[in-house]
Amino acid sequence: MASPWKTASVPGLQLGLGCGFWICRSYRLLFRAGAMGPHVVPRQLVWLSRWQAVCARGASVQHRTRAGVSRIPSLLSPGGALGASPLVRRSSSSTPPGAPEVVLTQQRYPVTRLPFSAVSAEDLAAFERILPGGVVTDPEVLEASNVDWLRTVRGCSKVLLRPRTSQEVARILRYCHERNLAVNPQGGNTGMVGGSVPVFDEIILSTTLMNRIISFHSVSGTLVCQAGCVLEELSQYVEERGFVMPLDLGAKGSCHIGGNVATNAGGLRFLRYGSLHGTVLGLEVVLADGTVLDCLTSLRKDNTGYDLKQLFIGSEGTLGVITAVSIQCPPKPRAVNVAFLGCPGFAEVLQTFSSGKELLGEILSAYEFMDAECMWLVTHHLHLASPVQESPFYVLVETSGSRAGHDAEKLSDFLERALSSGLVTDGTVATDQTRLKALWALRERISEALSRDGYVYKYDLSLPTERLYDLVSDLRARLGSQAKHVVGYGHLGDGNLHLNVTSEAFSPSLLADLEPYVYEWTARQRGSVSAEHGLGFKKRGVLSYSKPPEALRLMQQLKALLDPKGILNPYKTLPVQA
Amino acid sequence: MASPWKTASVPGLQLGLGCGFWICRSYRLLFRAGAMGPHVVPRQLVWLSRWQAVCARGASVQHRTRAGVSRIPSLLSPGGALGASPLVRRSSSSTPPGAPEVVLTQQRYPVTRLPFSAVSAEDLAAFERILPGGVVTDPEVLEASNVDWLRTVRGCSKVLLRPRTSQEVARILRYCHERNLAVNPQGGNTGMVGGSVPVFDEIILSTTLMNRIISFHSVSGTLVCQAGCVLEELSQYVEERGFVMPLDLGAKGSCHIGGNVATNAGGLRFLRYGSLHGTVLGLEVVLADGTVLDCLTSLRKDNTGYDLKQLFIGSEGTLGVITAVSIQCPPKPRAVNVAFLGCPGFAEVLQTFSSGKELLGEILSAYEFMDAECMWLVTHHLHLASPVQESPFYVLVETSGSRAGHDAEKLSDFLERALSSGLVTDGTVATDQTRLKALWALRERISEALSRDGYVYKYDLSLPTERLYDLVSDLRARLGSQAKHVVGYGHLGDGNLHLNVTSEAFSPSLLADLEPYVYEWTARQRGSVSAEHGLGFKKRGVLSYSKPPEALRLMQQLKALLDPKGILNPYKTLPVQA
Repeated sequence: MASPWKTASVPGLQLGLGCGFWICRSYRLLFRAGAMGPHVVPRQLVWLSRWQAVCARGASVQHRTRAGVSRIPSLLSPGGALGASPLVRRSSSSTPPGAPEVVLTQQRYPVTRLPFSAVSAEDLAAFERILPGGVVTDPEVLEASNVDWLRTVRGCSKVLLRPRTSQEVARILRYCHERNLAVNPQGGNTGMVGGSVPVFDEIILSTTLMNRIISFHSVSGTLVCQAGCVLEELSQYVEERGFVMPLDLGAKGSCHIGGNVATNAGGLRFLRYGSLHGTVLGLEVVLADGTVLDCLTSLRKDNTGYDLKQLFIGSEGTLGVITAVSIQCPPKPRAVNVAFLGCPGFAEVLQTFSSGKELLGEILSAYEFMDAECMWLVTHHLHLASPVQESPFYVLVETSGSRAGHDAEKLSDFLERALSSGLVTDGTVATDQTRLKALWALRERISEALSRDGYVYKYDLSLPTERLYDLVSDLRARLGSQAKHVVGYGHLGDGNLHLNVTSEAFSPSLLADLEPYVYEWTARQRGSVSAEHGLGFKKRGVLSYSKPPEALRLMQQLKALLDPKGILNPYKTLPVQA
Repeated sequence: MASPWKTASVPGLQLGLGCGFWICRSYRLLFRAGAMGPHVVPRQLVWLSRWQAVCARGASVQHRTRAGVSRIPSLLSPGGALGASPLVRRSSSSTPPGAPEVVLTQQRYPVTRLPFSAVSAEDLAAFERILPGGVVTDPEVLEASNVDWLRTVRGCSKVLLRPRTSQEVARILRYCHERNLAVNPQGGNTGMVGGSVPVFDEIILSTTLMNRIISFHSVSGTLVCQAGCVLEELSQYVEERGFVMPLDLGAKGSCHIGGNVATNAGGLRFLRYGSLHGTVLGLEVVLADGTVLDCLTSLRKDNTGYDLKQLFIGSEGTLGVITAVSIQCPPKPRAVNVAFLGCPGFAEVLQTFSSGKELLGEILSAYEFMDAECMWLVTHHLHLASPVQESPFYVLVETSGSRAGHDAEKLSDFLERALSSGLVTDGTVATDQTRLKALWALRERISEALSRDGYVYKYDLSLPTERLYDLVSDLRARLGSQAKHVVGYGHLGDGNLHLNVTSEAFSPSLLADLEPYVYEWTARQRGSVSAEHGLGFKKRGVLSYSKPPEALRLMQQLKALLDPKGILNPYKTLPVQA
């Protein structure tokens, strides 16, 4: 038999048809040729290529039907199931028609209002003097800011303030501090743990109108902007100038950069660009008493004293209100590829990751995984089509690099090894924006699909990667028919599991089987009970599963130092003190 | 005339001779061929290749003499001027024969001892109970720990403690806290600002014997170790396992990882792997009162409460004693190249950097610069030979990647553009360890060469890159013949200038011309008066040039919270309170 390397059919590729393995081989050859210079690989061809492991695994060549292949265009065409904008825009709003009213947090949860003052008519007049036209008391407008986007918690604030400058924030906080009025800082209100809405009647301090870009340095890529800039708009701004934001997440269309920093958002680029503790260069923060702390430097290195900005990254608005951010944007990669692959087991998901780290090296920019139940949810509830054959697990591998030909060659070698060794049984590759987004949507819209499945119990855990999926399997056995679905997905490259369980309606007995079981399981692995979502209101009681008493005590001391009256985002992050 | 692309002579390359430009072209061709697979480029050939810009700049082909080429082997052979181990091992020791005694800090500087207790015989007995055999009072041994490696400051401590465990550190600090005894934590004693030695009679708490690797995860590359592990030994350990430490610096042979973290060391890999605020995953810290704060997690993501470890990174031992570190090690690059280039001006240094970022992309791992006076110092005082023609500026470009062929092709394209556009006038490339180290030594040993030139006034500044060298030129004009040398070098890629001025002996009038001029100049650019060296004892008075009063006040509050008696590394980091 002739070597497939020589007989691989390029016309077959152009049709997007043919047997998978042969296409894979010719795809590889194309990529090899591409290594001689950028942009040699026709993007259409690359996209159309699909492959299977049948040849590599010793079976005979398998012909795919047209129907099988046609699933791809149905998924990816602009008019297809995904639509032109596959990503969800999270924005809270008034109660949608037919949606049940969200129960007040103070009624659903055992929480007691702390002795803050109540907002008086004099207070409103004072706010109006500080922010002429920026004081909102209309209950309908307030409704959107009182309820979280997941529609699980609800405050009863009577006033929403919309400052435009840090000086206005300072004057508001100085006033609130003197009057002992509690304040709930709010960005895009896209949080997962009820941290961004009031619990009682806290004043909502919104960064919505603080959306000005202050400066951008076109050589270094340093962006300085107000806290209320929407992440997606910042992304667009810097991408037009040859850079990218070092973070990206599903909520990008709504979330504010100030909120991202306040919650130490992780997201989809963490694997490549690391934590905000490393990429944020400077912050301007208004402290509880109205002091403006100007650490808004744009320097990559600054060892003059303690790095105060770090205190506020991830403090969820409980230590100060972030009003401006200086952040290091990396250069925009000239080539981005996404491979969406099917794996026969979780061991193969892990081995594929090791192989990716080895062969993709510095261009590996994301490694996400999802299980078969996730795929069922997005196909069933959102009518997305899977681009690959049904598999127990799926992984999304993204590469970002400066040279298309080199990247394609690395990716090709990685895919060939994954395929020939049986780690991967089916897959597809995308290089253009529309299709990249469509593949990403399969992963990013899982959360949306879950919310359509019923009541969702959400856990966001850091675990040793080799034990990460054991918890999902364990829970599936433990819960049995009590749960509709037990699913696992997330940022495998960062050891971050999103574990979600659904049931028809809220069930106290199911919850009792989940908690503290999930937290205790995580603690035994020295994992984190909140990898990237933070603690907010809902998880503040579980901090001690991941932190020792000495750490908790120091956190409480820091809170007392920076906010002695406790007016900033009360009932959040730290557990109730005994 | 035939195209040089076609007529380039490979035999010329094999001889390591011939005219520069032609060699560059053929070198490019070799790299192109190398792109088809790793290790195709013969390393000897690459190393021997040198080039000049004469052709590219329109001049006729210039033949280099054998003597000119022979400078390279004289620099690089194991028996050459650099010797087998070009890097300096910084270790303090008893007064070297003939060296002048270092004046006591309390005599040279206006500093007053704070009312701490003095160490008594009972205290020594108590320490001996905590650390049997780990209490040192021999004055000769103590001398090495009382004097900094630059031999500029000197304490008069009477006792050095060498614990082996964090529990022992906790017991020592609990005792000292109760007895109001001041403590000077000490790692490798390689600091630049007098932060690591006592000012008066503080007890020296050394991490020397806390040098145990606790764990290493061979898949994730997470290293957990005690604070006293020497950086170079850790590097070797993880490199044997396929990873690298995310930081590297000239003092690696002596410095301790705990000290690196306590001072937020920057160094040579910062451009690629970023700050320790991003790469340190967890810390174990003993607080002033002996509380052990266990935040020694190995998780990449953990948003459970405030990120306490960040407080201690860069706090120079004034907020707690770091006893163990968990750090994320990146995979070891399979290919490393270093290019050492001559540039005709600082504008060209900047443009070469821009070009490098564009063409080298994700494999650019270091971009260092030095001026002609630096080269004069290393050639004159250390007898190193310059590997390139005399130039106003030199840059060292390092690439680190996962695929030799791809990296070589990127580097070749970068070098060709730099050369043909006149940004670079001469250069050499190395790929093997010995020669890489030899080129790095030219940059890393500048500090040593300076110390042989006379009294050195040292400044470590962060500045906007486009203004970075203006200060050096400005000072050169301002100081005139008062200074022997005014030199500028450093981590250009990070905007970090090391500005050094030498004179025959210490001169108060020269100092008065330097300070506060340098600090004011830096403050006008919103720069940092300490980019990576920290403030320690010597620079603590200049913090306010880079930080506003509100930040200073909060730092002092944090110090008071964490160390209410002020026993940890007193007289360091923060200015004397009014």
